[in-house]
Amino acid sequence: MACSRYEYVKSYEQDDSILPNVWIVIRIDGKKFHKFSKIHDFEKPNDENALNLMNAAAIAVMEEFRDIVLAYGQSDEYSFVFRKETQAFKRRSAKLLTYVTSLFSTNYVMQWPQWMKDRKLNYAPCFDGRVVLYPSDENLRDYLSWRQADVHVNNLYNTAFWKLVLDKGLSNQQAEERLRGTFSADKNELLFQEFGINYNNMPAMYRKGTILMRKRLELQPGDKTRQVIVPLHDDLISSKFWKTHTELLGKYTPGSYKTTAELPRLLTNQLEQQFENQAIIS
Amino acid sequence: MACSRYEYVKSYEQDDSILPNVWIVIRIDGKKFHKFSKIHDFEKPNDENALNLMNAAAIAVMEEFRDIVLAYGQSDEYSFVFRKETQAFKRRSAKLLTYVTSLFSTNYVMQWPQWMKDRKLNYAPCFDGRVVLYPSDENLRDYLSWRQADVHVNNLYNTAFWKLVLDKGLSNQQAEERLRGTFSADKNELLFQEFGINYNNMPAMYRKGTILMRKRLELQPGDKTRQVIVPLHDDLISSKFWKTHTELLGKYTPGSYKTTAELPRLLTNQLEQQFENQAIIS
Amino acid sequence: MACSRYEYVKSYEQDDSILPNVWIVIRIDGKKFHKFSKIHDFEKPNDENALNLMNAAAIAVMEEFRDIVLAYGQSDEYSFVFRKETQAFKRRSAKLLTYVTSLFSTNYVMQWPQWMKDRKLNYAPCFDGRVVLYPSDENLRDYLSWRQADVHVNNLYNTAFWKLVLDKGLSNQQAEERLRGTFSADKNELLFQEFGINYNNMPAMYRKGTILMRKRLELQPGDKTRQVIVPLHDDLISSKFWKTHTELLGKYTPGSYKTTAELPRLLTNQLEQQFENQAIIS
Amino acid sequence: MACSRYEYVKSYEQDDSILPNVWIVIRIDGKKFHKFSKIHDFEKPNDENALNLMNAAAIAVMEEFRDIVLAYGQSDEYSFVFRKETQAFKRRSAKLLTYVTSLFSTNYVMQWPQWMKDRKLNYAPCFDGRVVLYPSDENLRDYLSWRQADVHVNNLYNTAFWKLVLDKGLSNQQAEERLRGTFSADKNELLFQEFGINYNNMPAMYRKGTILMRKRLELQPGDKTRQVIVPLHDDLISSKFWKTHTELLGKYTPGSYKTTAELPRLLTNQLEQQFENQAIIS
Repeated sequence: MACSRYEYVKSYEQDDSILPNVWIVIRIDGKKFHKFSKIHDFEKPNDENALNLMNAAAIAVMEEFRDIVLAYGQSDEYSFVFRKETQAFKRRSAKLLTYVTSLFSTNYVMQWPQWMKDRKLNYAPCFDGRVVLYPSDENLRDYLSWRQADVHVNNLYNTAFWKLVLDKGLSNQQAEERLRGTFSADKNELLFQEFGINYNNMPAMYRKGTILMRKRLELQPGDKTRQVIVPLHDDLISSKFWKTHTELLGKYTPGSYKTTAELPRLLTNQLEQQFENQAIIS
Repeated sequence: MACSRYEYVKSYEQDDSILPNVWIVIRIDGKKFHKFSKIHDFEKPNDENALNLMNAAAIAVMEEFRDIVLAYGQSDEYSFVFRKETQAFKRRSAKLLTYVTSLFSTNYVMQWPQWMKDRKLNYAPCFDGRVVLYPSDENLRDYLSWRQADVHVNNLYNTAFWKLVLDKGLSNQQAEERLRGTFSADKNELLFQEFGINYNNMPAMYRKGTILMRKRLELQPGDKTRQVIVPLHDDLISSKFWKTHTELLGKYTPGSYKTTAELPRLLTNQLEQQFENQAIIS
Repeated sequence: MACSRYEYVKSYEQDDSILPNVWIVIRIDGKKFHKFSKIHDFEKPNDENALNLMNAAAIAVMEEFRDIVLAYGQSDEYSFVFRKETQAFKRRSAKLLTYVTSLFSTNYVMQWPQWMKDRKLNYAPCFDGRVVLYPSDENLRDYLSWRQADVHVNNLYNTAFWKLVLDKGLSNQQAEERLRGTFSADKNELLFQEFGINYNNMPAMYRKGTILMRKRLELQPGDKTRQVIVPLHDDLISSKFWKTHTELLGKYTPGSYKTTAELPRLLTNQLEQQFENQAIIS
Repeated sequence: MACSRYEYVKSYEQDDSILPNVWIVIRIDGKKFHKFSKIHDFEKPNDENALNLMNAAAIAVMEEFRDIVLAYGQSDEYSFVFRKETQAFKRRSAKLLTYVTSLFSTNYVMQWPQWMKDRKLNYAPCFDGRVVLYPSDENLRDYLSWRQADVHVNNLYNTAFWKLVLDKGLSNQQAEERLRGTFSADKNELLFQEFGINYNNMPAMYRKGTILMRKRLELQPGDKTRQVIVPLHDDLISSKFWKTHTELLGKYTPGSYKTTAELPRLLTNQLEQQFENQAIIS
């Protein structure tokens, strides 16, 4: 065969199978999204549509890879959690990593118009991805808590910062100086005193990020239940979250809600629509 | 700090730096592109526009990552060769792998309308990627030869197969049976005898795939030379290729052509245009 | 500095730190010990002294590396279990692996005369070693059960085989044929019917292998307790074992026995002596 | 089968095959040999017998593993170079690493009495080992040059240091202070002026370390040539070394000397003897 002389090069591919029985987390992250968000006029400190575009791309990834039991997104990053037992792609690290990263990337571009409307996508965005392994359930919870603590710290800062810049007319540098060395309590107080804002009343998606999980529910009372991917903006640091969604750390089967009546507060309008259109898998 | 208790999870990220002084090849590959090409009405056996869309996405990747000295594409796959000495992203395997895969993926979607015109992109495509390391120059040449021998074998078969199906009206199964056990010479003969086709006169892009390299050249005689990414459809198995493009295995600097006059046969019209518009980096 | 020009080669050493929070098992295994045991006249099917030499070498390894909480040996192999949290040698895989393998190897040679008496060591033995990671306690238990099930199957076979050869005068081939296709029950029956042997009364070390653990105990009633490495020949497949030695899977501190009075059945004479002489660490 | 329920744990062993076509260097290193050499009264700054014991252990390793084309030792370390193409143990990293480390370790203990005579081995020594990969011949040369530059720098320092301590009666601290900040030329001058020593006349084994290679030679003029492992104390930093021993970087076959007459200056008496006794492999 013509190609046989060269085929030995295939043997240079090295096995990268992931150790069995560990949580596999794939986190993707926007490359140079500071600049990207500026060029595309993202609202500051949070652009609801841009966040929902991230959520929509992540939902598409979860629809494709059924062994992802939870995804968590905030800012320009998204973490996907494969269940410990997954045999998807024989647990080959590069396969899992690139499929998730590629599919997220293409969905981000394809769904851009739907969420960003008349804001044109000026150039191709790029996401990096990494695989991190967590042996214990506690490790996994701590990982997710780490990411959610991160969004809390950053969003509180950004909320105060942009209020000072946009409403008070401070320069970026002045706002930075004003906030330097302040604690959470200080920033809460500043928002309340100077802007009449109760931080805890800000939209949960901004304060908590977005959790995606599979749930079975009736779309209309009395309907057959269907499996859908549901976005939540809950506190996942608390143990209450894990007691409510016991399927995550147990033997995995999608959890269930009785009716959509339990969900409304969770779903942004846009996601509700998408959820009806396409997140329904059966 | 609020998040410090959880920050230990960051230490679970493992170092994946690539051994120094080896060629780094990243090959991306379309996921389920057999089905994808059917749904999107790709011409058989080769869809010139679909191939040029691949080429255009690959050019965008090379424009971004300057340490890629050569890329080679055929069918639904593309290989990117980073020079041995690259320090890009500290040679971290996952970073290199995901940036290349993600940027290729987003460009494929963004540039779809430009190449595929009124064929709508029905769903988000997905590419996997892998990293393979080659210690010696000979290994690298053999790797690229392996991929080019692959396109030769496949394209000759596909050309004959689709002629039998499309022109002779054979069913897929009948065409398969007709070609079972034939050698290259047999298929060449079949094309010539039954369809009057000299296989060697088929477009070089179909027979040889596409090689992308950086070259400095004058766009117009007398112009300042500029660095561009040039597509070739040459035989890279022969040593002539490597003698012509000595920059590849030597101490790397982009090679040079005197004028575009040397290039015309290389460039499809579409790529020429793009090359004028955007491949010019300086 | 004279050597600086070459020092870059140090950067080719790659990080091999082991993922945190997993059980680290290092198993060493005699190279070509079938031949080695023949040349050194090991008694068949079990050579008590040769096994105790293995045990003595393993005890020396446990004395040196305090994060080994359990070791399990049978035939010419020994497994060492590092606690999940160990930071020994920064969890660098090659360091842990080679220290254990090297120290076991040198102790095997040094303690040879003490156990093998007038049998001379004719050439240098060699052991290979491997690192295997187990994320969960259940995995670890199953690993150890796997090794103990292995010794059961092999030892029952070997006991019957050598009885047929040594007592009945069968050739090796005849003995093999006689045992082909038999189940455990058949071999038990054969031993009982033809040789009057109740397999369950054979020495536990042969049937169960040797478990090494750290325990605190009084050497004489009323003495201050001291930490020693204790050999057991118990059934570790049963959950009883893990309920008795709760320190293994809990937050590790050496377990305790009240007095040596609880131990006698566990210790061979030879190990008792060694245990008094040198296994006493504090 | 009794053990099948547990056998799944075998699948947790991960593939560690080494990339093809790279030089594989395994370096072993004495653990806490500063203390070990003190307790065993090694002569300072160099103990000829202790070095030859290292050499003898390394020769035993080379006799066993035929794909080691060169070994280089100095102080308490030894590097073993496997040829690029080796398929020994399917290039599994842990296998290669532990076999070399274990066999070196057991030989060190077994051959101790032969070299150290009435100095008793008080406790089991221990060596760590690591695998380092070098893609190019230049890398390999630079690696070995790095180790030889290291022995030069250390030995010159140690020679001066111990002269000051042993002959001049300085304390360790005084000797350190005296040498602080000195260059090679200063230390050469000090040895010459104060002790009448021309450093370049010191034994080559101390200044250059020991290189082991396979050679074919006639033991007596006219004899059939035989393959033996030959120790050299040459300068391997210079290109002369590599021009003399062209087999190393070429397609490997053992090099040849015409007669032992070319060797005498290379061999210590002790190694000559061993070389006659046991290094003769065919």
